[in-house]
Amino acid sequence: MAKEIERKFLVAGDAWRAGAAPGIAYRQGYLSAGSDAGCTVRVRLGGGRAYVTIKGPAAGAARDEYEYPIPPTDAAEMLERLCAGGTVEKVRHLVPFAGRTWELDEFGGENAPLVVAEVEIESADAAVKLPPWLGAEVTDDPRYTNAALARTPYSRWGRP
Amino acid sequence: MAKEIERKFLVAGDAWRAGAAPGIAYRQGYLSAGSDAGCTVRVRLGGGRAYVTIKGPAAGAARDEYEYPIPPTDAAEMLERLCAGGTVEKVRHLVPFAGRTWELDEFGGENAPLVVAEVEIESADAAVKLPPWLGAEVTDDPRYTNAALARTPYSRWGRP
Repeated sequence: MAKEIERKFLVAGDAWRAGAAPGIAYRQGYLSAGSDAGCTVRVRLGGGRAYVTIKGPAAGAARDEYEYPIPPTDAAEMLERLCAGGTVEKVRHLVPFAGRTWELDEFGGENAPLVVAEVEIESADAAVKLPPWLGAEVTDDPRYTNAALARTPYSRWGRP
Repeated sequence: MAKEIERKFLVAGDAWRAGAAPGIAYRQGYLSAGSDAGCTVRVRLGGGRAYVTIKGPAAGAARDEYEYPIPPTDAAEMLERLCAGGTVEKVRHLVPFAGRTWELDEFGGENAPLVVAEVEIESADAAVKLPPWLGAEVTDDPRYTNAALARTPYSRWGRP
């Protein structure tokens, strides 16, 4: 098991694009998102690879995480047949800043124009130098999880 | 993707044990069972191997099924940490009969003394010669799915 600890922020403006590597387009969906046990089971397809990822319940910024490679054809089928409830499309850019690699997710489809920045850290209280293009921190806002965005896309927020 | 088509029966008596190979003990749990999309994500550990198995919604006797081997240590952790809501313990015996292999699951723990027999078939209307030790067919009874038995064990049925 890996332990995933990360902080998540909104992104203000386009200044980050100057340092960004060309992105990889991902499509991902959820076979289970926050049901009984609070686990999330994600299928992700992108860059010619595919994974199934099992995440435990969130405990602050930390979550248990198990990830296994699977055949991309399986992932495409599962996204089509088993994730009909919602998928997320995004382009992920890697942006180095002050010795850390930030993952900037530029969402498409019904989640456009949302851009979210994440950084993985070694412990919940690790010191992180924040890039100037960051907006508000949303680590603890459950609306910004990808599983939540698959169910309730950003462009529909605030509508009944 | 594999297509899983199977029929399931209760078992009457112990006559089946005469033709049974020594069983393998399994422990399995569910990260997701019949949530939104109707998918089941199972973690199974037994015989020194472990798998994560993703099953689509049941359509009569048929279900989509994807299975991937995972490290047994991961499976043990997941069963302990992420499947707290319920696990199933059983010993699976393989019993040949009339050219087919029957899987007899002898449940333990709170599901004892339940024994269920399953046979995988090539199509929903395939001819199957039924062994004399079979009881009632329960293919369409959702209480007998392993996911349901993990949540509501056999020994608790009929109690409020």
